[in-house]
Amino acid sequence: MLKVEHIGIAVKNIEESNKLFAKLFNKNAYKEESVSSEGVKTSFFQMGETKIELLEATAEDSPIAKFINKKGEGIHHIAYEVENIEAEMTRLKGEGFTLLNEKPKHGADNKLVCFLHPKDTNSVLIELCQEIK
Amino acid sequence: MLKVEHIGIAVKNIEESNKLFAKLFNKNAYKEESVSSEGVKTSFFQMGETKIELLEATAEDSPIAKFINKKGEGIHHIAYEVENIEAEMTRLKGEGFTLLNEKPKHGADNKLVCFLHPKDTNSVLIELCQEIK
Repeated sequence: MLKVEHIGIAVKNIEESNKLFAKLFNKNAYKEESVSSEGVKTSFFQMGETKIELLEATAEDSPIAKFINKKGEGIHHIAYEVENIEAEMTRLKGEGFTLLNEKPKHGADNKLVCFLHPKDTNSVLIELCQEIK
Repeated sequence: MLKVEHIGIAVKNIEESNKLFAKLFNKNAYKEESVSSEGVKTSFFQMGETKIELLEATAEDSPIAKFINKKGEGIHHIAYEVENIEAEMTRLKGEGFTLLNEKPKHGADNKLVCFLHPKDTNSVLIELCQEIK
């Protein structure tokens, strides 16, 4: 794993949260993007080599809607950049971690992604991501 | 703010979690440290420019013990490195954020720190930190 690529934060209203985080970071989001397959609107703030990704649900049955219903707003996942996502998925499966998708899938921000089940990782949802070149 | 300095993760048993995160990251924690004033044992993993800090409570009334009792294990806070913590505290107070300590205090890893109340930040506990030179 190379670095913390981004930290995902589930919010109820991304427009309000964009204003809030702009005050916090003293700069605006550099990108907004919807991912219809995941039922989310996202925005990104750059902070050093890491992005802060805000996520608002656009569908009631999306993972972010379910997370907010259960736990409220807050940090949803940590994404680590990897060089070779398939090799890392194989390594982690061999170490006993549970992959939530058996093949890499397309995420926001031009990435191939895989999530690890938080039951194995102190309740922290972990995403592996590799940039699509 | 300069970068995500670290991500704090509350765990019940830091020895078990050290083994778990060593498997996840494919490397060991590079440091362990107790901060008696905060009632915690900590360990640190380097991931790019960001550290992952595991936190186990050593006192029943410590913030980490309360967090785990209320929410279970998981991500506890995000710490952003700042150049001048007092200037940033003044700026953020002026923007309407609530400081949990009015003066910088000493944290783990040779830092001056200040926490922002999560009620203003989508339930994300935020730490500002500045390295003590």
